[in-house]
Amino acid sequence: MHIFTESEIKQMIRLDKQMIPVIEDAFTQLKEKDVVMPPIMRVDVKESNGEVDVKTAYIPGKDMFALKVSSGFFNNYKLGLPSANGLMMLISSITGEPKALLLDNGYLTEVRTAAAGAIAAKHMAKEDVHTVGVIGTGAQARYQLKALKLVRDFQKVLVYGRSKENAGKLKEDMEALLNVDIQIEAEVEPVVRNSDIVVTTTPATKPLVKADWLHPGLHITAMGSDAEEKQELEADVLSKADRFVCDTKAQCARLGELHHSIEQGYIDKAAPVTELGELTSGTSKGRLNDQEITVCDLTGTGVQDTAIALLAYERLTEKDGIGLAIDNKKIIHFT
Amino acid sequence: MHIFTESEIKQMIRLDKQMIPVIEDAFTQLKEKDVVMPPIMRVDVKESNGEVDVKTAYIPGKDMFALKVSSGFFNNYKLGLPSANGLMMLISSITGEPKALLLDNGYLTEVRTAAAGAIAAKHMAKEDVHTVGVIGTGAQARYQLKALKLVRDFQKVLVYGRSKENAGKLKEDMEALLNVDIQIEAEVEPVVRNSDIVVTTTPATKPLVKADWLHPGLHITAMGSDAEEKQELEADVLSKADRFVCDTKAQCARLGELHHSIEQGYIDKAAPVTELGELTSGTSKGRLNDQEITVCDLTGTGVQDTAIALLAYERLTEKDGIGLAIDNKKIIHFT
Repeated sequence: MHIFTESEIKQMIRLDKQMIPVIEDAFTQLKEKDVVMPPIMRVDVKESNGEVDVKTAYIPGKDMFALKVSSGFFNNYKLGLPSANGLMMLISSITGEPKALLLDNGYLTEVRTAAAGAIAAKHMAKEDVHTVGVIGTGAQARYQLKALKLVRDFQKVLVYGRSKENAGKLKEDMEALLNVDIQIEAEVEPVVRNSDIVVTTTPATKPLVKADWLHPGLHITAMGSDAEEKQELEADVLSKADRFVCDTKAQCARLGELHHSIEQGYIDKAAPVTELGELTSGTSKGRLNDQEITVCDLTGTGVQDTAIALLAYERLTEKDGIGLAIDNKKIIHFT
Repeated sequence: MHIFTESEIKQMIRLDKQMIPVIEDAFTQLKEKDVVMPPIMRVDVKESNGEVDVKTAYIPGKDMFALKVSSGFFNNYKLGLPSANGLMMLISSITGEPKALLLDNGYLTEVRTAAAGAIAAKHMAKEDVHTVGVIGTGAQARYQLKALKLVRDFQKVLVYGRSKENAGKLKEDMEALLNVDIQIEAEVEPVVRNSDIVVTTTPATKPLVKADWLHPGLHITAMGSDAEEKQELEADVLSKADRFVCDTKAQCARLGELHHSIEQGYIDKAAPVTELGELTSGTSKGRLNDQEITVCDLTGTGVQDTAIALLAYERLTEKDGIGLAIDNKKIIHFT
């Protein structure tokens, strides 16, 4: 078995243009192949305000598949530790043997999640995007902006965060990097009203984006909600949009924005919902004109994890002198 | 993070008398505490006749919990490889960080499963056991015999396996080790009719043990069935027994013998079922007299994994010079 650390993985995987077709292909496979993707396993550790999630997906024809263990422990800041942790395991789909451990501390998840945001915008946002709005100021807000820049050449960013300080930090970090003008807003409303694309990247449990603020040409990617109690968009935002797309209907109906829209009666549970893989495979169209309002609901899928883990493994094992190898029994040596 | 290999783990964890109270305590905790034990996650890889299962359980008050990934790929024999693989991960219940990897290739599962069999027999079998019957001749058949010897002083073993050769191998391996007389039977019936305890350890999908063969004083532990399609006992064996106990009702009703008894109408879905933790905690009684027929249905629980992984970690980290430590980023050194 091979073991690779975060710094090694970061050398080999960057959020760049090459990542877009890799994750697009993952969504296409999910739609076209008989992918085995069981529901997320979740362990709540209430005493520590924490949760551990397990995701996995086997794509027929691939010789390995990923199993990801990721955690969010939201009291960790009191200990000076990041809330997120995680690793991915690659398992042989021929023999069931564990083949590799990618000790990425959640880095690959950040990249594959941002790539999904870029893919949603690529297919669903207007071609001509001037302003991008971001709700939330964490790591994924930064990754989403970086990923969007790979597919749309925007010049301006409006950002809203509960903490002005964190919003200022994001502006500081990203303005020069992306060569854009970043403006901090004190409310969510002007961000939504004045943007061509809005990305919501928060763990909110009460909706931040109101349906009243929707305007022609807007695209929203809601990527924060991935649990039953989370919600970033008012439940009627989805029904008022001209086009609504999920990463997977099954998961969004349980854990995403769709869940609340169904529960509140805005969308019928049995109604057909377009999935992102239909856009990437070309079987459904994304945006049809510059006037449409479009919304994409991302909950994060095991198939993205398998795709990025396979790419990381390929690159990591091609390179000499990195990683550790441990045999079944005992011998340990550097590769 | 600490990493330990199979040979290191085998030095520190043996199937001995100390293991019984450890696993008994796990079942007691499951009954008495608010243990978080989500349903098993399963990935089927049909092309390779394989499956990967993920089990986990968080016991409140424990500072870590185990997440186990185990696989069974049943074409591996064609490649000269064992069908079973697996590892356990210990995750901090304070911070969510992965703390240790136990690369045990399924060894700890063998031990904790055998210990559960011994615990079932300890509480449910007659005190005076002369003959033990084993159906199946794999590794777990051997572990079950070894574990039973820790709680009952039997002198004779009857074994049935589809392969006479494998049955002969089991006799060869275990006769001297356990200081018992092992007799190979060509049919299941004489094994059941002539034993005080019968343990079924097969992946059978059609029942092997018939209700007609039950006799006063018999205890059966059915540990092979852990998936919807598996079944070792005729569905009316459970309803004909005087005492029937599950490791967990929820899991047995989905994956164990209980599943088939409910489906075929022998046991009502809503009927109360005694769980093993009630016997270990003393809130329910096991066998009441030497005439009762008792059956225990084991599907294997995450709480057993957490209990044995915590013990292994404690012993492994107490000992100098074994294991590997990897820090969050890069530095790798021997502990």
